[in-house]
Amino acid sequence: MIDLRRHNANFCAEHFLEQCRRQVSKAIDRFEMIAQGERVLVAVSGGKDSLAVWDLLVDLGFRADGLYVGLGIGDYSDTSGHHARAFAAERGLTLLEVDIPETYGYDIPDGSRAARRAPCSACGLSKRHLFDRAALEHGYDVLVTGHNLDDEAAVLFGNTLHWHTEYLGRQLPVLPARDGFPRKVKPLVRLTERETAAYCVLRGIDYLVDECPMAAGNRHLAYKEALNDIERRSPGAKHSFYFGFLDRAAHRFAPDAEADRTELVPCSRCGAPTTAEVCAFCRLVDRAGGHLPEAGSPGATPVELGATRRSRREASVGGGR
Amino acid sequence: MIDLRRHNANFCAEHFLEQCRRQVSKAIDRFEMIAQGERVLVAVSGGKDSLAVWDLLVDLGFRADGLYVGLGIGDYSDTSGHHARAFAAERGLTLLEVDIPETYGYDIPDGSRAARRAPCSACGLSKRHLFDRAALEHGYDVLVTGHNLDDEAAVLFGNTLHWHTEYLGRQLPVLPARDGFPRKVKPLVRLTERETAAYCVLRGIDYLVDECPMAAGNRHLAYKEALNDIERRSPGAKHSFYFGFLDRAAHRFAPDAEADRTELVPCSRCGAPTTAEVCAFCRLVDRAGGHLPEAGSPGATPVELGATRRSRREASVGGGR
Repeated sequence: MIDLRRHNANFCAEHFLEQCRRQVSKAIDRFEMIAQGERVLVAVSGGKDSLAVWDLLVDLGFRADGLYVGLGIGDYSDTSGHHARAFAAERGLTLLEVDIPETYGYDIPDGSRAARRAPCSACGLSKRHLFDRAALEHGYDVLVTGHNLDDEAAVLFGNTLHWHTEYLGRQLPVLPARDGFPRKVKPLVRLTERETAAYCVLRGIDYLVDECPMAAGNRHLAYKEALNDIERRSPGAKHSFYFGFLDRAAHRFAPDAEADRTELVPCSRCGAPTTAEVCAFCRLVDRAGGHLPEAGSPGATPVELGATRRSRREASVGGGR
Repeated sequence: MIDLRRHNANFCAEHFLEQCRRQVSKAIDRFEMIAQGERVLVAVSGGKDSLAVWDLLVDLGFRADGLYVGLGIGDYSDTSGHHARAFAAERGLTLLEVDIPETYGYDIPDGSRAARRAPCSACGLSKRHLFDRAALEHGYDVLVTGHNLDDEAAVLFGNTLHWHTEYLGRQLPVLPARDGFPRKVKPLVRLTERETAAYCVLRGIDYLVDECPMAAGNRHLAYKEALNDIERRSPGAKHSFYFGFLDRAAHRFAPDAEADRTELVPCSRCGAPTTAEVCAFCRLVDRAGGHLPEAGSPGATPVELGATRRSRREASVGGGR
């Protein structure tokens, strides 16, 4: 029996899974995230959210492949990569992989230090770049991330605390494709962390339970804790904070996001859209002591990668969403 | 030595007091709260904030009287009234008083229960009505309340969590006079609770330390706690949340507050501006089993009350801001 206080309801296992599917369907329909027949790429970390969203999308009939990015965060990355590969292999799904240490010559712990960036910032920048690039190069229609309601509410809380109006203007569950970026969608916005974890347990999905060791003590986790305190006292508070924002406030900040969006040009090194001559990712690679992919390596030559890619990359390490 | 982490500074007693005066001056100037020579009425509870703001205004050269409203909350009200009267008497200041049980025949604990309202809601409604009424009847130019940065940030947090757009549209440090309401201003918005408490200690102001017993466990306190957790990790977070809102977000919600402001008519019983035939205060008095002031009593006949009023009302009980 699973008790969902914000829905004021208890569910048996079967109906809980149905409830999860319904919430994801509802999010996809309401925000027009994915059309049937489109090719979907899921950003996979090996954690509960990314594996749950991949499983849910396949279950709902979408053609969804995964992409795992190896970050070089020691044991954490080894284990997360293992979970991602095992999930895909057991279900006969296609998992692409990019290993940052192998292909770009840096890892998140040392690279972020060398580049004088917070690890979560260097990691986020790297993953966004590599997910975007892979989605476009391999011809996917849409990139899916596993951000759940807790994630989105915590990000919203941070953006609201600082009144980052340009971020508030684009904190939406769907970002349309534009200027060399793929469409990006978050089908789990109607499910909480606790719900995606329960979903995985009930579906027998073996996910990496540990939080990323680099994230300990970051602000995002503090915002989550603050909202959890509020939610305990007022079940449903997170949902109404996030969806109330989407319904009644987000449009007020849209002009700021628009104004913030200056003319983009292709990066002179890697071709990704950027406002500078060299994009933020290539600058990070430089400062982290890495390099662009060598000629002939998978990252240098965009190719359509299939299931066979998996075996080729089995030696790689990686992790984190 | 007083350590103010958000200013990244330590102050000796003398410079701390000067800093408090400067912050209040700055708020008054920037938001055009009070002009020199205007007659000021301070809503006084006997707590640190209302006594500090009164002291600061007098110190800055404003002509400020106080108004204490007796709420009938047992010992808490007895003690708070004592502090308010002692403060005024020691400084030769004028303190007006309205005692709800004596004049209106109900008290907050029993009245809110009978009226099926949360105590803080019944109390807030009663005080707003009586402060507004007294300010207008006695010809004051402006009504001052002791809301500090913690209060305003917590209210903003609550309004943001629920995206109460019409409240967000009017959560300003100055509400201009309109339609039978006095101008209302909050000169302490640049000072925290900790700072007003330190101010009182250094100035030898004897204030009521206890929180109102009716407020225990209310949401406002939970919002304060959540923001305190954030502030501990990021000193200055509360200030940037509140002032960032004023600078970059409040105007976006102003139309909602405007739209919410329907045509006001005088209450058929007491004459206060209301959207209904009978105002919310008179309806509360009815449901709480109270009565309007008897003919000839101070609440019934608007009169200019001076320092003599104090001695006349010494038997009264009351409290809370």
